[in-house]
Amino acid sequence: MIAKRQKRRSTCPINASLEVVGDRWSLLIVRDLMFAGARAYKDFLSSEEGIATNILASRLVKLQESGIVTSERDPQDGRGVIYRLTAKGVELAPVLLELSRWGTRFEEGEPPGGILQAWETNPQAFLAEIRKQLLDVPRSTG
Amino acid sequence: MIAKRQKRRSTCPINASLEVVGDRWSLLIVRDLMFAGARAYKDFLSSEEGIATNILASRLVKLQESGIVTSERDPQDGRGVIYRLTAKGVELAPVLLELSRWGTRFEEGEPPGGILQAWETNPQAFLAEIRKQLLDVPRSTG
Repeated sequence: MIAKRQKRRSTCPINASLEVVGDRWSLLIVRDLMFAGARAYKDFLSSEEGIATNILASRLVKLQESGIVTSERDPQDGRGVIYRLTAKGVELAPVLLELSRWGTRFEEGEPPGGILQAWETNPQAFLAEIRKQLLDVPRSTG
Repeated sequence: MIAKRQKRRSTCPINASLEVVGDRWSLLIVRDLMFAGARAYKDFLSSEEGIATNILASRLVKLQESGIVTSERDPQDGRGVIYRLTAKGVELAPVLLELSRWGTRFEEGEPPGGILQAWETNPQAFLAEIRKQLLDVPRSTG
């Protein structure tokens, strides 16, 4: 799907990013795809935050229109759809990791073991591993 | 002001951060305080995105309740109020910089000259400089 370009509020790239993912749900969907192995629609619904199905549906459409998420027919279940991050979506990893670091330090919560340490120790190696895990996977041909 | 603790949707620190700054305006206010020299209420209103005054007022209250922004009487104008980032607010710099980097790469816009290069070349030195600029300032005693 072609990324949809909209008229921006400004020329600031921080603003551009916030216009795409600056809400309380979109980055949680990206988080679930990146770190929690989410693939199917029901996987997102089972996350602890309890996203409503109408919000999930609208955010998945927007994330696909923005070129962050892609979907395909599930090769194991012809009626199912699976979602993946695109290369553009995977590159949101530093944003998520810095939100996690800030939240851990100043708000509350603990990320799954070792993630922040790995990020702080060697960001480039961490990103390379994330890219490999999420992008070097066989795609359905169907 | 004491940071207000609310019941979170989950124990994930990414979610905790998004509950505090996960909307399309709060991080623009932090951006203006961090990089654009904003201090007074009218400074935020003049940003290119055109924030509405009621949204600005509500976000400034929330940012203060969250311990990200502090306000004081303007020593140069007894009727005025100036806003500053707290230490907690300044530590949002990596989130903003990674949003800027992602936006520059995949959406549109250009950050002011040299910021992203400085961040990529030496993140620790960049953060130290930001902290120095924003926190080592004389405070009003009034």
